[in-house]
Amino acid sequence: MNEFELIRTCFASQPVSRPDVRVGIGDDAAVFRVPGGMETAITSDVLVAGVHFFADADPVSIGHKSLAVNLSDLAAMGAEPAWFLLDLTMPSVDVPWVQRFAEGAFGVARRFNVQLIGGDMSRGPLAIGITAIGLVPEGGAILRSDARPGDQIYVTGDLGDAALSLMQHRGELKLSVAESAAITDRLARPMPRVDESLALRGIASSAIDLSDGLLADLGHVLEASAVGARLELARVPLSSVYRARLAEIGWEGAIANGDDYELCFTVPPERIPDLERMAAERRFVITRIGEITEDRELDVRDPAGKPYRPRALGHDHFAPA
Amino acid sequence: MNEFELIRTCFASQPVSRPDVRVGIGDDAAVFRVPGGMETAITSDVLVAGVHFFADADPVSIGHKSLAVNLSDLAAMGAEPAWFLLDLTMPSVDVPWVQRFAEGAFGVARRFNVQLIGGDMSRGPLAIGITAIGLVPEGGAILRSDARPGDQIYVTGDLGDAALSLMQHRGELKLSVAESAAITDRLARPMPRVDESLALRGIASSAIDLSDGLLADLGHVLEASAVGARLELARVPLSSVYRARLAEIGWEGAIANGDDYELCFTVPPERIPDLERMAAERRFVITRIGEITEDRELDVRDPAGKPYRPRALGHDHFAPA
Repeated sequence: MNEFELIRTCFASQPVSRPDVRVGIGDDAAVFRVPGGMETAITSDVLVAGVHFFADADPVSIGHKSLAVNLSDLAAMGAEPAWFLLDLTMPSVDVPWVQRFAEGAFGVARRFNVQLIGGDMSRGPLAIGITAIGLVPEGGAILRSDARPGDQIYVTGDLGDAALSLMQHRGELKLSVAESAAITDRLARPMPRVDESLALRGIASSAIDLSDGLLADLGHVLEASAVGARLELARVPLSSVYRARLAEIGWEGAIANGDDYELCFTVPPERIPDLERMAAERRFVITRIGEITEDRELDVRDPAGKPYRPRALGHDHFAPA
Repeated sequence: MNEFELIRTCFASQPVSRPDVRVGIGDDAAVFRVPGGMETAITSDVLVAGVHFFADADPVSIGHKSLAVNLSDLAAMGAEPAWFLLDLTMPSVDVPWVQRFAEGAFGVARRFNVQLIGGDMSRGPLAIGITAIGLVPEGGAILRSDARPGDQIYVTGDLGDAALSLMQHRGELKLSVAESAAITDRLARPMPRVDESLALRGIASSAIDLSDGLLADLGHVLEASAVGARLELARVPLSSVYRARLAEIGWEGAIANGDDYELCFTVPPERIPDLERMAAERRFVITRIGEITEDRELDVRDPAGKPYRPRALGHDHFAPA
């Protein structure tokens, strides 16, 4: 089976067909229409076997996560996802694997109405490259650079369960079957905060998604905005599974590990009533964890109010394994 | 050095800065503006060390080719390139390599006014993924599916020199220093036919770029358009280097090997005067090589007018090495 037949077999019957796609899969490039008043947001990420996922992991999860992490980047801009391209390299054609991979990616695509419009397949070490494209109102993208002193810092959901799941995979942590079931999808199948992101347009002053860990990612916002922050560890939202292990494993999993794919965003004081109303109406789980400050440093306080010195500052993609 | 510093060092001072880029490198996603009346064309390709290029090849050439092959895909749609994303995976941080890679990519970017707006860097086997984005007038993309019986088939430039260069690399062919110098860039640093492509808007009925070989790529056009073609080998344009070796190596290098990155396009009879005028004015090298037919087959004729049976039908990305 050659690559063209493989593409047809596994990706032909995708779940989403958008009217704004002029040319989809099958030509030299895809062509789409951007409505007036909108700008185009675009991001790409590569997931490499043995680096970003276990080579023997469930292909459905790999497909899910590959698309989800890119939609998470769009969510961090307040962009509504619309289209994606998939570049798949693999050592040899493995149709059942690709079919299950497609099942995972298309599950996320269906959920967020995102259409696969192109890409490339090639022989090589197992790796997945996805480019996700979305729409954002003209001038309305939520940037890293617009946090201001006095803005309140929030995160969506709970932090740290992806780290728990990774520790379990590595044999560093024993979880009960129930605990394991409660958190396993947080690492393997994160769900990007697209709906929250769109509701934050006009409310959030800045945003980033938590892929490298709260301290590192918030650090990017502080650097881009030329501000600092005070972060209260006691406010960081943890799942009941994590909280039960907190004394044993410490805060690092929640603040210095990647892969949570929650949003961290800042809100000016005058927009907080809008935020609270919106979150209540939409039943979004958000938690205030600190405040933007003028001093250009990240002041992390432990539950006793004392300065907390983190052990690690996040994920470096080129650090030794 | 971590990935963020590497990105800053090697990609910070890029040569192109476009006014339509709202958010460039450094946020979760890039944001650009599409002018009214235009649609967006997008394509991505991955180049894997040991598969698409020799791992020890000159990084300037690898950078050049990585961007060039993607711009070639946009050219095949009649799209004007504007922006690109770069995903680079490498086993460890090699700053001199990345700097030279960037030099090659930015040389092509400068030539075609294309701005790097994002991407990703990660640890993994050496591979380059590029997503190129361009603009095409509403409804004006040149597709593979619009060739009609009676349309004349053309190609730009000469075909086969990339194959000669590859044969030389493999030790299958000895070339003189002068011959080698004349063709070496055709494999290592192909130049996408962007200018030709834009001039073909409104003239060409269909187009494809020659990445897999003329027979295979023309075959894609015939399949998408539900037509056939008669191809005259005697008309296929060859460089003087290739022509001097023709008796020795045969036609395959020119018609069944990839990597030429010329355009193959079709033109309805009534547009041929426009084509000839444009090509003469712009000094574009184009050659008529055959005609689209109703019968859904590819009828290749040798210089004696007899049916020619090709030995291979192009490049299969999953064929054994």
